[in-house]
Amino acid sequence: MPTASTSQPSVTPAMPDPQPSNPSASAADFEASVQRQRSAVESYLAAFIAGRSLPENLRAATEYALLGGGKRLRPLLVLRACTAVTGEEDLNGQTEAGKAAMAAAGAIELIHCFSLVHDDLPAMDDDDLRRGRPTLHKQTNEAMAILAGDLMTGLAFELITTSLTTEQAGPAGRLCLELAQATNDMIAGQVYDTLPDFDAELSELDRLKTIHRNKTGALIRCSCRMGGIAGGADTEKIDALTRYGEAIGLMFQVVDDILDVTQTTEHLGKTAGKDEAQGKLTYPSLIGLDASRAEVERLYHQAYDALTAFGDDAEGLRQLCDYLAKRTN
Amino acid sequence: MPTASTSQPSVTPAMPDPQPSNPSASAADFEASVQRQRSAVESYLAAFIAGRSLPENLRAATEYALLGGGKRLRPLLVLRACTAVTGEEDLNGQTEAGKAAMAAAGAIELIHCFSLVHDDLPAMDDDDLRRGRPTLHKQTNEAMAILAGDLMTGLAFELITTSLTTEQAGPAGRLCLELAQATNDMIAGQVYDTLPDFDAELSELDRLKTIHRNKTGALIRCSCRMGGIAGGADTEKIDALTRYGEAIGLMFQVVDDILDVTQTTEHLGKTAGKDEAQGKLTYPSLIGLDASRAEVERLYHQAYDALTAFGDDAEGLRQLCDYLAKRTN
Repeated sequence: MPTASTSQPSVTPAMPDPQPSNPSASAADFEASVQRQRSAVESYLAAFIAGRSLPENLRAATEYALLGGGKRLRPLLVLRACTAVTGEEDLNGQTEAGKAAMAAAGAIELIHCFSLVHDDLPAMDDDDLRRGRPTLHKQTNEAMAILAGDLMTGLAFELITTSLTTEQAGPAGRLCLELAQATNDMIAGQVYDTLPDFDAELSELDRLKTIHRNKTGALIRCSCRMGGIAGGADTEKIDALTRYGEAIGLMFQVVDDILDVTQTTEHLGKTAGKDEAQGKLTYPSLIGLDASRAEVERLYHQAYDALTAFGDDAEGLRQLCDYLAKRTN
Repeated sequence: MPTASTSQPSVTPAMPDPQPSNPSASAADFEASVQRQRSAVESYLAAFIAGRSLPENLRAATEYALLGGGKRLRPLLVLRACTAVTGEEDLNGQTEAGKAAMAAAGAIELIHCFSLVHDDLPAMDDDDLRRGRPTLHKQTNEAMAILAGDLMTGLAFELITTSLTTEQAGPAGRLCLELAQATNDMIAGQVYDTLPDFDAELSELDRLKTIHRNKTGALIRCSCRMGGIAGGADTEKIDALTRYGEAIGLMFQVVDDILDVTQTTEHLGKTAGKDEAQGKLTYPSLIGLDASRAEVERLYHQAYDALTAFGDDAEGLRQLCDYLAKRTN
């Protein structure tokens, strides 16, 4: 994961730091914490898939789609939102909160990966490459990609409930509700994206916001809320995490739009200029590059403001916000 | 729904009745109770879809796939299994049990309909017709059929958790766990079905049982268990409902295999002889027609035996068992 010290030009090079600098939160510490959390989530998911009775070819397809890299942004958000509430990091399931957060982190990544597999299908975006490898339907076949995508959805709910359902039920029901709603909003967003004239009285910018809020925003918002629920947050804290999640979710997408215009295909690892070539609504095309950069800055501060009440316990979420604002791919 | 008095030859015309006949459980009463329960589930699902914020074309596609007919066997099993436990029918959500059973009934039908939509896709079974109408991808397009199928999965979990998640959580977590596991087993069954040489050391009959137990058996078994959970059944009663569900699930599939050989395409409403033409493993092809009929009878008695402890409260499940054994399409 690149940091602000990368040689690539950053999207918002002069982003002010609204918090007093925390000496322990150096770039190296951030990188180390990201690696530690990613490894924990990946091991957890690998063990869950390995332990689930499945046809071997379906298991292989699922592992290919789920364990072949990725930023793991959504799991990181779940784990860090939980830490913002509890004040501690628990990657080994020593606490009820840690157990719930890890299950939710694995589940949201299953949903994210399912959506990528189905998005790549010939009837959808028809992509042959994902993260530098053949997409699942190219690696196997379309039927397997449809079924493995379906399976990952079901596994997400099985993971949450297997880990957490006891006689007392715990937060499993609430986590499932959050995840199901976000999954459905994301699917609605994909439909909005293929039908951008869905609401004639809305401005193009409001239509774009509706697409983003659903297509990428729903899962990012859900990650933050699930982390809060896992940590036992009260309504006020869940609301604050929701505001943070909504701000970084939209910021993530505006940065994506900017990078599509300003970066090379080689650097992005995916085709640059694709949005414009496909005539998609984007922030730069609607409001220009400078105003898009100002919007990133506005959302960045909005995300920081939402975290005030958490104090130092939200440092992990602040660092992720910095990374998302300054990322270059 | 045909009854034993239909003019079509029944699969098992001389099925003995192992219970003293219940004068109130006439064919007309059975028919009326089926219609009443079906209408209740369909109204409930229609209201849920109507109340959910969705792009209009996605809503229309979902309604087309979900509300266009069908036997509603799985919801009937949920409602009747709940009644077997509580001793009463509650289709209006007056009781906690009735509320949970209706949510579970709607959810299992959403999962069943999602599986049909994806099964019909060109990359899967490539079917143009379902219940006498164009399949969803013919009526709309492939992308919409993929997305509407995905949506129905998510809606199933949203339905259970929206209806039931309170501070106390209730049975939502356990119901989600049952439904998620069954969904995943069903998907595994579809993969086994397309790869019938999956386990070389198993006999063909054991392989066929594995396919059936997953592909159709998982959701039928799950329906019975969810009804029991909704009704607050103890472990012993859940186990009994599981044995009933496993027996009728396999019976359902053996009857299907027999009908594929013995009935005309016109009567079935789908292509007869398709299994044989596709070289699929079936009961008649493996053990012959007479032994297949004997297997139906064995499973029928096994289902009845499982219900003994419920007394008259399981009459609804017994009638469904009778119908499933004697159905002709």
